[in-house]
Amino acid sequence: MGSFKDPSKSSKEPYSYEYFNVTFPSEYVAHVEINRPEKLNAFIEVMWLNLGAIFTRLSHDPNVRAVLLTGAGPRAFTAGLDVQAASQSGVLGDSSDGSEQDIARKSLYIKRHIEEFQACVTAIEKCEKPVVAAMHGHTYGLGLDIALCADMRVAAATTSFSIKEVDIGIAADIGVLTRLPKVTGHASFAKEIALTARMFTPAEALNAGLLSYVLPTKDEAVAKGLELCKLVASKSPVAVVGTKELVNYSRDRPTEEGLKYTSVWNMGMIQTEDVKRALMSGLQKRKPTFEKL
Amino acid sequence: MGSFKDPSKSSKEPYSYEYFNVTFPSEYVAHVEINRPEKLNAFIEVMWLNLGAIFTRLSHDPNVRAVLLTGAGPRAFTAGLDVQAASQSGVLGDSSDGSEQDIARKSLYIKRHIEEFQACVTAIEKCEKPVVAAMHGHTYGLGLDIALCADMRVAAATTSFSIKEVDIGIAADIGVLTRLPKVTGHASFAKEIALTARMFTPAEALNAGLLSYVLPTKDEAVAKGLELCKLVASKSPVAVVGTKELVNYSRDRPTEEGLKYTSVWNMGMIQTEDVKRALMSGLQKRKPTFEKL
Amino acid sequence: MGSFKDPSKSSKEPYSYEYFNVTFPSEYVAHVEINRPEKLNAFIEVMWLNLGAIFTRLSHDPNVRAVLLTGAGPRAFTAGLDVQAASQSGVLGDSSDGSEQDIARKSLYIKRHIEEFQACVTAIEKCEKPVVAAMHGHTYGLGLDIALCADMRVAAATTSFSIKEVDIGIAADIGVLTRLPKVTGHASFAKEIALTARMFTPAEALNAGLLSYVLPTKDEAVAKGLELCKLVASKSPVAVVGTKELVNYSRDRPTEEGLKYTSVWNMGMIQTEDVKRALMSGLQKRKPTFEKL
Amino acid sequence: MGSFKDPSKSSKEPYSYEYFNVTFPSEYVAHVEINRPEKLNAFIEVMWLNLGAIFTRLSHDPNVRAVLLTGAGPRAFTAGLDVQAASQSGVLGDSSDGSEQDIARKSLYIKRHIEEFQACVTAIEKCEKPVVAAMHGHTYGLGLDIALCADMRVAAATTSFSIKEVDIGIAADIGVLTRLPKVTGHASFAKEIALTARMFTPAEALNAGLLSYVLPTKDEAVAKGLELCKLVASKSPVAVVGTKELVNYSRDRPTEEGLKYTSVWNMGMIQTEDVKRALMSGLQKRKPTFEKL
Amino acid sequence: MGSFKDPSKSSKEPYSYEYFNVTFPSEYVAHVEINRPEKLNAFIEVMWLNLGAIFTRLSHDPNVRAVLLTGAGPRAFTAGLDVQAASQSGVLGDSSDGSEQDIARKSLYIKRHIEEFQACVTAIEKCEKPVVAAMHGHTYGLGLDIALCADMRVAAATTSFSIKEVDIGIAADIGVLTRLPKVTGHASFAKEIALTARMFTPAEALNAGLLSYVLPTKDEAVAKGLELCKLVASKSPVAVVGTKELVNYSRDRPTEEGLKYTSVWNMGMIQTEDVKRALMSGLQKRKPTFEKL
Amino acid sequence: MGSFKDPSKSSKEPYSYEYFNVTFPSEYVAHVEINRPEKLNAFIEVMWLNLGAIFTRLSHDPNVRAVLLTGAGPRAFTAGLDVQAASQSGVLGDSSDGSEQDIARKSLYIKRHIEEFQACVTAIEKCEKPVVAAMHGHTYGLGLDIALCADMRVAAATTSFSIKEVDIGIAADIGVLTRLPKVTGHASFAKEIALTARMFTPAEALNAGLLSYVLPTKDEAVAKGLELCKLVASKSPVAVVGTKELVNYSRDRPTEEGLKYTSVWNMGMIQTEDVKRALMSGLQKRKPTFEKL
Repeated sequence: MGSFKDPSKSSKEPYSYEYFNVTFPSEYVAHVEINRPEKLNAFIEVMWLNLGAIFTRLSHDPNVRAVLLTGAGPRAFTAGLDVQAASQSGVLGDSSDGSEQDIARKSLYIKRHIEEFQACVTAIEKCEKPVVAAMHGHTYGLGLDIALCADMRVAAATTSFSIKEVDIGIAADIGVLTRLPKVTGHASFAKEIALTARMFTPAEALNAGLLSYVLPTKDEAVAKGLELCKLVASKSPVAVVGTKELVNYSRDRPTEEGLKYTSVWNMGMIQTEDVKRALMSGLQKRKPTFEKL
Repeated sequence: MGSFKDPSKSSKEPYSYEYFNVTFPSEYVAHVEINRPEKLNAFIEVMWLNLGAIFTRLSHDPNVRAVLLTGAGPRAFTAGLDVQAASQSGVLGDSSDGSEQDIARKSLYIKRHIEEFQACVTAIEKCEKPVVAAMHGHTYGLGLDIALCADMRVAAATTSFSIKEVDIGIAADIGVLTRLPKVTGHASFAKEIALTARMFTPAEALNAGLLSYVLPTKDEAVAKGLELCKLVASKSPVAVVGTKELVNYSRDRPTEEGLKYTSVWNMGMIQTEDVKRALMSGLQKRKPTFEKL
Repeated sequence: MGSFKDPSKSSKEPYSYEYFNVTFPSEYVAHVEINRPEKLNAFIEVMWLNLGAIFTRLSHDPNVRAVLLTGAGPRAFTAGLDVQAASQSGVLGDSSDGSEQDIARKSLYIKRHIEEFQACVTAIEKCEKPVVAAMHGHTYGLGLDIALCADMRVAAATTSFSIKEVDIGIAADIGVLTRLPKVTGHASFAKEIALTARMFTPAEALNAGLLSYVLPTKDEAVAKGLELCKLVASKSPVAVVGTKELVNYSRDRPTEEGLKYTSVWNMGMIQTEDVKRALMSGLQKRKPTFEKL
Repeated sequence: MGSFKDPSKSSKEPYSYEYFNVTFPSEYVAHVEINRPEKLNAFIEVMWLNLGAIFTRLSHDPNVRAVLLTGAGPRAFTAGLDVQAASQSGVLGDSSDGSEQDIARKSLYIKRHIEEFQACVTAIEKCEKPVVAAMHGHTYGLGLDIALCADMRVAAATTSFSIKEVDIGIAADIGVLTRLPKVTGHASFAKEIALTARMFTPAEALNAGLLSYVLPTKDEAVAKGLELCKLVASKSPVAVVGTKELVNYSRDRPTEEGLKYTSVWNMGMIQTEDVKRALMSGLQKRKPTFEKL
Repeated sequence: MGSFKDPSKSSKEPYSYEYFNVTFPSEYVAHVEINRPEKLNAFIEVMWLNLGAIFTRLSHDPNVRAVLLTGAGPRAFTAGLDVQAASQSGVLGDSSDGSEQDIARKSLYIKRHIEEFQACVTAIEKCEKPVVAAMHGHTYGLGLDIALCADMRVAAATTSFSIKEVDIGIAADIGVLTRLPKVTGHASFAKEIALTARMFTPAEALNAGLLSYVLPTKDEAVAKGLELCKLVASKSPVAVVGTKELVNYSRDRPTEEGLKYTSVWNMGMIQTEDVKRALMSGLQKRKPTFEKL
Repeated sequence: MGSFKDPSKSSKEPYSYEYFNVTFPSEYVAHVEINRPEKLNAFIEVMWLNLGAIFTRLSHDPNVRAVLLTGAGPRAFTAGLDVQAASQSGVLGDSSDGSEQDIARKSLYIKRHIEEFQACVTAIEKCEKPVVAAMHGHTYGLGLDIALCADMRVAAATTSFSIKEVDIGIAADIGVLTRLPKVTGHASFAKEIALTARMFTPAEALNAGLLSYVLPTKDEAVAKGLELCKLVASKSPVAVVGTKELVNYSRDRPTEEGLKYTSVWNMGMIQTEDVKRALMSGLQKRKPTFEKL
């Protein structure tokens, strides 16, 4: 019986997740706001779990074609991990009475924990629909892990960036060191900010290819992010989802592998009705509309 | 506050999952029995979701060091996907009234579905603790997808195997085609059973390296599987978990990558107390005991 | 204007290629016979060019679902490269008066030549439809390069195999050394036959997984090969083509890559009518028929 | 009997290919001009087949050491695929009466088609001799697929770039999405132009590393491209061919793989006479000459 | 001034390394005997350093074309690591008073140590000339790490094998877990012996493809190994070195990568005089001789 | 008996290596100065051997946390290979009387030589502690091979760069062609400087991401390099060593591989005392001190 149905389609419940506001400012555009401004949007465990849950759900939500990610309040996109909370919970691997625990067992528990944490952040990268991060203020540590998973990045001129982890005695492990060489071709700069934990400016980030635009204020940065989202949301979602997937896939693999995967991806996708609609609209000089995805 | 705790440790709730019996026949050994014998243990959707959930949980369960996987009843390990049920739900991509759906959208829904299905089966391979599949009777299609994710395989002489998918018009997509060349070095045989969907015998499977042992009856096969589990469960869990991980990792990658990962894995793991306990027990000719993991 | 057409469909010209007989012994089965029996089917340049052309064409021929590859005459599948001819043409890199040529230039010319030669043989592996090699008599050097590109291999008991290249002073470069570790899991045996150039028997080849079956005579080997081809040709070509592609792809890559490619391959393929036809035929206990591919 | 000869050396026939002008403006420099100016050099099928044929032949032509690629007429390098022609021929997967075709079969035909199309464009990247693209005017869609295969890129200030495919409902599949992350390290910019299909300027392209130079006019851009070609053509072709190959190889693979391949490449190449000639010319302060390759 | 010289050629000093006998039982054949029979040839640190030094030197020794590796005395090839010595030196990561050391620092020291140890054993695999391991008696732990680096393996029927590491609380880290899936295609057996540390017999090892031959006694196994070495040593060293390199390279990489590397390797190598000598000798029915390498 | 000791810790002998000055200008900072200013710091064989030895030793030296690399004298970082010396020793593969040598044997000797040379330069990249190259004056050929192995690069405005190798008839083989696409995202520029051997300026190098800073004079460049070293040396060495390792590892591999390796690396490393010290110092607003590594 019946045509194949995507299970996500039936979900009608609102997006309510602690420490996040999820709104829909425009057709097919979702806006995810990190919302713990009194702590500079610093992350505690429930937040990264929620972050992962939100983007996993947005990925398949047929009402979503692009996602804007911002931080609440005037001061920070996010100051990163809430280190104080983390050190109390043992998340940092540092524990005052941990000495009696077997090192190997503790290592495995930590590994499981890092992997779960990574998976929550990677959910942004795996979200089928493109994500635009619009940053301002403190954007430290985990803030960069998160931003580098987005597809496009814009920032207010007032943003201050830093890969903070070295300053708390650890090599960053939620993804920034892995993704950094893939989102900037300025290797000397990348190593410098990773190894020194120094602050860097939006101008430097723009120059290194980490950003698409720098805007004077947070409001303008968020508006620019929204504009990009709207533009993406106006396109065929089949084309957009495929484009994100193919660029991400190819970035990580040899050219021949990318081309091979592309042909297999498109052998079915190109049969979409969207091509006909897009071509017809082009001829008729009107804006095409596309079915949900 | 205090030492790092693995969240899974606190779980006390019983393993109750529809269509599965999960028991603990021996210290540190779990036994997962596929339990839909009236339908030859054929899988419907809730079953593969439960399969994934069970192995994901066993992976981190400190009371588990080895897992035995079998099928209930005298007739089948599992006859594979319940094709009748699947064709009704549209899972096979075949739907009587699906023609009005856009091909690209339907493709993406199917892709999401295959990936979820694959992930449930891959949970067996990702389970940190070794898994032994003890098979008997019909072991078709999905039955092989599942069995190839186990670490060790034994079978009753009465088992009949088949990669059935070609006979229902599809290339198998839940993993058997991917894992087949990695669990047998007999490439001509592997291609033959994949391309022809012919039945093959335990003797052929043994010869091709797909099995470790063939036993006369189901009971003996299950007993042999349990014996292997007990043996593994008597070893240091740190050593066992590491061994599974390193073999799986290296199987898929160049030698130098395997060696590099090995040294990074062991730089911490080798600091375990288990080494001291194992060495001491060896000197004292007694059976060592190891902390939970 | 109209539906997308595969260009190969329109070709009606007969398969006539020097030194090869191409026949169609059964519906959807092509039989390619290497035909230079007076020289033990040894290859000269036109032959490997023709070999490549034939398999490239069979790959897209809608009347072909499986291919049998054999050697004409009672004495050889193929004795390999016609070394005498090759050494006269300079193909082996050996030339009596070549000293005046610049080494780098000569190297590049040789490289282009090896790559062209490899591509002709690889055409068998790239042929979308499965290929069965049925061997007998001398099967040396290039004979193994070719046979290892097939999907299934059977041989007469009278076959004698040898990777001859070491005996003429070169490391085999048309593929046997690359494919050998991928078609047998007996590494010590593989190295031995590659390094010593010794003859080996069908029994040894069977044991090492290089063969699916050994038959007493050439006729029986060819008949077995044909039987396998007919069996494959009776299945859904969509399922068969996908199965060959997915096994070959996965053999060469990590498990996760194989699974990912599989889901993208099947998201479109599984929408084929063949599933419905196969299921219906199964219910009605009759042989399904499938559209050409 | 004879030293090894490269077959391409004997070819004397002129380069005459429909829709292309191939000239030799300077010693060892070929100039390929896309020539369908009345249609903004938009591509129809015969053109990409010819493009592939031309570069495959230039690759081995001993009279060629560098290739300049430009578009005829004042208005466009190329406006990309001739979408009107393509949609009529069914190339885009969109066909008004295609509904009766089996999706899987149509998918495979499309896959074969995409792969053939990709191969024609990849011929530029695989051309042993370096290629310089000098662009002006409309450079859309396929124009970027092509330009990203070149080794060096220059553009007139009047060039307008766009990855158009999203606007016709498809993810670009002839290579631009695969090569984009490999030719620019500005990931946010790359995703933006791929996902939004917006126009971008030569200045943006220069900043993102897609271009080496921006010149005021088409003539100056072409002159700059020719200057680069002449400079490359004045060097040892052994050194030049090796340099292109090693950079392309290494770009796609881990550092250790690149170093290993480099040593095997150069173990023979470095024995060339060109080293002696280059060193001697250096000492004697004169321009070296090198044998053809 | 003059032709390029391989530095290793000038070395005339004898191969004297503590705990090893290095002899030359036949032209171009070296015999390395592990010589600490009173301790079952168990390894202490100086031994693996010497093992690495010996094979690194043999690799470039022009008087060597094949290497036989055996264990002295009647009882063991090698019983593996001398665990008693290792635990005293802290090599196993286990130390009674290590608790005051920082875990991360200790981890890095251990990593450096494992990598050095791995490199010594990998020297066998990297030795340009083929290596035959002829085993007898106890062949445990490190014994298998070493044997799996050899190209061919033979054993006496009295050999007893075991991957012992799990029994001392660690995952084996000197290479056996990495190489095991690459030298046998019997995955279930491989996992079983790795996870259970059980003894296995030469018959099982032969069946799984770990061995080429099983001989009744140590003397016969050594004689068979020597016979294989002599056979290899009678071939063109250019062909032999290339064959080992190409099989090892391809085993670890996709088919296309293997073919590409092969063509680049042979573009120079095939220009060797050995081809002419081998062909001439073939015509003249006499044994060819080849220059040193 | 006792805790595991890193062997490098006991070395007290001074760093005295011909043609290099190794000093310690600041706590935990080593300064390596290439010292053959009368020859523009051009390299002869003993120099690259010494370079490798120095960095291999610095890598494990517990008194070193960052390394500055500069060239002595006012005129050059290094003019690269001393071509005159190299051509006399046959290193360039060019030898006046080499014609009687077998090409394959000579190729293998050259391969061994290139690999040894590469390994010496790669020692900089493999050095666990970060390396800053501060360049001035002539920085040609090998100078860039070396500089691209450093983690951060600064240069005086007077520096002139060139990848010279094409001008002496060879494709650069000591690493620059492999690393170039990994340290700059400006592909067109990278190909241009590699293929044309033209001089390029610090401004161009800065723009392409090859440099972090350009300073007016050599002294200022060296001072800036030292400042970066001091900053890195003030951080936790556990965090710094991990950061370098994880960026380098991830740069060369897919994102998922990078994340996986990261979690395994940090499962042990994060247990370091340095986290506690860093956090405590942060709270107390004082500079942390860390144990040696």
